[in-house]
Amino acid sequence: MNNIVLEQTDRTRIHRLPERGNYDRATIDAILDEALICHVGFVVEGRPVVIPTIHARVGDHLYFHGSPAAGMLRTLRGGLDACVTVTLLDGLVLARSAFHSSMNYRSVVVFGKAEEVSDRDEKLRVLEALVEHVCRGRSADARGPSEMELKQTLVLRVPIDEASAKIRIGPPKDDAEDYGLPIWAGILPLALIPSEAISDNTLAVPEYVSKYRR
Amino acid sequence: MNNIVLEQTDRTRIHRLPERGNYDRATIDAILDEALICHVGFVVEGRPVVIPTIHARVGDHLYFHGSPAAGMLRTLRGGLDACVTVTLLDGLVLARSAFHSSMNYRSVVVFGKAEEVSDRDEKLRVLEALVEHVCRGRSADARGPSEMELKQTLVLRVPIDEASAKIRIGPPKDDAEDYGLPIWAGILPLALIPSEAISDNTLAVPEYVSKYRR
Repeated sequence: MNNIVLEQTDRTRIHRLPERGNYDRATIDAILDEALICHVGFVVEGRPVVIPTIHARVGDHLYFHGSPAAGMLRTLRGGLDACVTVTLLDGLVLARSAFHSSMNYRSVVVFGKAEEVSDRDEKLRVLEALVEHVCRGRSADARGPSEMELKQTLVLRVPIDEASAKIRIGPPKDDAEDYGLPIWAGILPLALIPSEAISDNTLAVPEYVSKYRR
Repeated sequence: MNNIVLEQTDRTRIHRLPERGNYDRATIDAILDEALICHVGFVVEGRPVVIPTIHARVGDHLYFHGSPAAGMLRTLRGGLDACVTVTLLDGLVLARSAFHSSMNYRSVVVFGKAEEVSDRDEKLRVLEALVEHVCRGRSADARGPSEMELKQTLVLRVPIDEASAKIRIGPPKDDAEDYGLPIWAGILPLALIPSEAISDNTLAVPEYVSKYRR
C-alpha cells in the first residue's frame, strides 16, 4: 500500500521528545496489529475511565467489542469521544543516570468518536477479524457466532484518522559527562513470549497455537 | 500486612462478570507492582486522553513521573481527575466458540485526583522507587538525580483508595453443547520474558539484569 501520513492535530502532535513521533499509517497500523490489547479511554460524568479490551484493525477502522451490558460499551454507544491507546513494551533502558533511564516501546494513540457497528455483514467480518487478530488461523476452527450471540455482542469502531505513534528504540542516551562512570548501562530486551499450550481436550494442538508468535 | 478490602463505589464495582472483580488491596498491590507500565487517562476540554507511562506504588499511593513539559503531566498538575489502569496479559483463552474466546489477564483500575509531589524528600524517595520498580537493585548503581534533574522532573500521585482488580484465570468456559465439538480448545500462556542484555559499555552485566524476572 502507498504509505499515508496522517495530518497532525493539537491532540496527536508529539510535544515531548518530538523525534519519537510518527504519523505514518504503515507504522501506526503495524503497532495496532501487533498489540493484543488496547486501553480505551472515555469520559463519564466529566471524569476519565480507562478499560483494557481486545481490538482489531480492519482497513481504516479500529474495532473493539463486548457485551451490551458492559459499562464501557454502553457509555460509548451513543457515539462518544474515545481515546484508544496501544503500547508494546520492547525493553528496559538502563542508563547510567536514573534521569535518563527509560523503556523502549512502540505506542499508538487514536482519538475519535466511537460508533456502533449495526450492519450484520460488517459485524460478522469484524468478529472474525477479532479472532484472527488474537490468533491467526483460529477463525477457521472456532465455532462462529450464532444469531443470538451476534445480538449479544456490541461492536464499536473508531476511524484511524486522528492518530500518532511514539517510538523509542536503541541504547541509553546519557549525559556526556556520565559515560565515564563505572556503571553498567545497556538495554534488557523484553517480549511477550508464549509457553506450551494447556489443552482443554485431547485433540492435537493446532500448529497456529504450537508455533504461535506475536 | 492485614489485608484491606476497599469499599466498592459506582466507578469501581465490576458489573460485567462480577465474579472476576476483586477489591483486596493485597491483590490490587501485587498487580500494580508487577506491571511495568500503566495507562493514565485524563480529560482535556471534555475529551479523553490515555497515555502510557512508568509508575511505582509506595504504600497507599500510586506515583508516576515525567517532564513538566509533557502534556499529560501539565494537565494533571492542577489536581485533575485521573484513571490509572494497569493490565497484565497472562494468556490467550481459545474456546471452542469464538463467542467464549477470551484472554487470561489481571488488571487494576485506580480512580483519583492526581496531585503534584512537591516535598523534596518524598520526591527523592519516589524517584528511587520508580527505578526499583522497573529493575530491583538498579537504584544502588545508577547515578541519582542532580538538583537540576530533580527540578526538571514532575512527580504525581494518586491515592489507592478507589480501585478494583479484575482477573480471569483458567481454562475456556464453553457452552455445554459445544464441548463435544471436534475443535481443539485450551489456553496459550503468555509472559513478558527478557532476552540477553545488550551492553552499552564493557562492564560486567549486573546479576539484577542477567537474572531479571518479572
